[in-house]
Amino acid sequence: MSAPGPLSLNTVTVRDRWSLAQCIEGCARHGIPGISPWRDKLAELGVAQAARQIRDAGLFVSGLCRGGMFPAADAAGRRAAIEDNLRAIEEAQAIGAACLVVLGGGLPPGSKDLPGARAMFRDGLAAILPAARAAGVTLALEPLHPMTCADRSVLSTLGQALDLAEEFGEGVGIALDVYHVWWDPDLARQMQRARGRIAAFHACDWLMPTTDLVFDRGMMGDGVIDIPAIRAMAEAAGYAGPCEVEILSRRWWAEDPDTVLETIKARHATAC
Amino acid sequence: MSAPGPLSLNTVTVRDRWSLAQCIEGCARHGIPGISPWRDKLAELGVAQAARQIRDAGLFVSGLCRGGMFPAADAAGRRAAIEDNLRAIEEAQAIGAACLVVLGGGLPPGSKDLPGARAMFRDGLAAILPAARAAGVTLALEPLHPMTCADRSVLSTLGQALDLAEEFGEGVGIALDVYHVWWDPDLARQMQRARGRIAAFHACDWLMPTTDLVFDRGMMGDGVIDIPAIRAMAEAAGYAGPCEVEILSRRWWAEDPDTVLETIKARHATAC
Repeated sequence: MSAPGPLSLNTVTVRDRWSLAQCIEGCARHGIPGISPWRDKLAELGVAQAARQIRDAGLFVSGLCRGGMFPAADAAGRRAAIEDNLRAIEEAQAIGAACLVVLGGGLPPGSKDLPGARAMFRDGLAAILPAARAAGVTLALEPLHPMTCADRSVLSTLGQALDLAEEFGEGVGIALDVYHVWWDPDLARQMQRARGRIAAFHACDWLMPTTDLVFDRGMMGDGVIDIPAIRAMAEAAGYAGPCEVEILSRRWWAEDPDTVLETIKARHATAC
Repeated sequence: MSAPGPLSLNTVTVRDRWSLAQCIEGCARHGIPGISPWRDKLAELGVAQAARQIRDAGLFVSGLCRGGMFPAADAAGRRAAIEDNLRAIEEAQAIGAACLVVLGGGLPPGSKDLPGARAMFRDGLAAILPAARAAGVTLALEPLHPMTCADRSVLSTLGQALDLAEEFGEGVGIALDVYHVWWDPDLARQMQRARGRIAAFHACDWLMPTTDLVFDRGMMGDGVIDIPAIRAMAEAAGYAGPCEVEILSRRWWAEDPDTVLETIKARHATAC
């Protein structure tokens, strides 16, 4: 029997109505023990101030979203991405984040060279890893659903992410989001390979029908993903950490955030 | 250097404006040598009549769409799917189709049991294979993009389809659609495994942005798929057959079908 793990709120889930300060206060008030900010919200509040408020509220930080996004049309663009990632590592360290979530990024504009974009991702990861190791910040590679391959993530499967994690070793882990991996026919085998490498576990649900490729994720329990089964695989692979809820959804963004947090708490108990 | 192979029109590409009789006449008039009907259009014209008109027009039949869709909520539903597939095999034989395209089908209503649905697909395939072998009809397993896993296809990757093709052997092949496999980080390796098993090659393109999970496929050349690279892999794996164009798109369905066919011919020459 798996347990859902302590709950953490990814701030994107209420991004349209709450600032980071409101998210911190809201988590504390609702008894949600963890938080995972996005960098735009962090910048609004200021990193030092955010770190203080999170600490004062007694919250743990399950991750910082997001680094990566290395593929770019030219060398200057790739350098800029690396420099931005170095800042993200400092921010993750400053707020005591368990990891920096690292996304693949899409194809450079006009490009059809997917193997080339994947090589750019690997090169970017190699470039920032020494700084991440020095800072003690785990880089959590998050494979995104293949439907985002063109414009958001050339990192598409758990197997592909594990290949990189195994190649680079210390300091590189996996951010596992049930939304992105639930369909994978190779999931059970790859989850066994993931032993000791899972740095984050994200939950939401796949709605049927799904009406948008990015902004129609569902609340846990409203869709078709067997979340407890995936959680059990993660635990069998040694993961016992938080369950971070990250829902990009126009429907939930329109709701009162207090209702969203209440719903998350209820579903965390029944559907995760 | 790869060659795009002889062109075939999948009738779904102009489904809203042309009957099968119009598709047959249109292919002949535009010098498109092949056709691949969907069963609803075939039923409208009648199988015997369709077979006669296709033969009289001198067209080859690159496939019949579609069989499979085995997962169902109960035993009666699964039996009905198998019986429907047996009729589809007879139809494919009657029109001289190179294969019957076999789709996974989605999760049964209310189910979150993806491994169970995949087992139902395998069982259904096993049930119809003797009839397919007897009729000389190749069952072409078509993995669909993982974004269709919940409601259309629990058959999600080329690797998964090849596992079944290897298990069942004679009479089972693969329908390879670039739209469904282009994102796969394991594609090059799986295409080597596919040697001798590719029964159909389908082309369209992945648009950026993509605004619908089913009906926003692009005309070849309008998107980000490196179609010639995938064609070259197919040829390296021994495939030298037709390039069947199958575009499910509200945008192209609204066009004059003669314009669609002219565009397909042009793009087949330049983007495939």
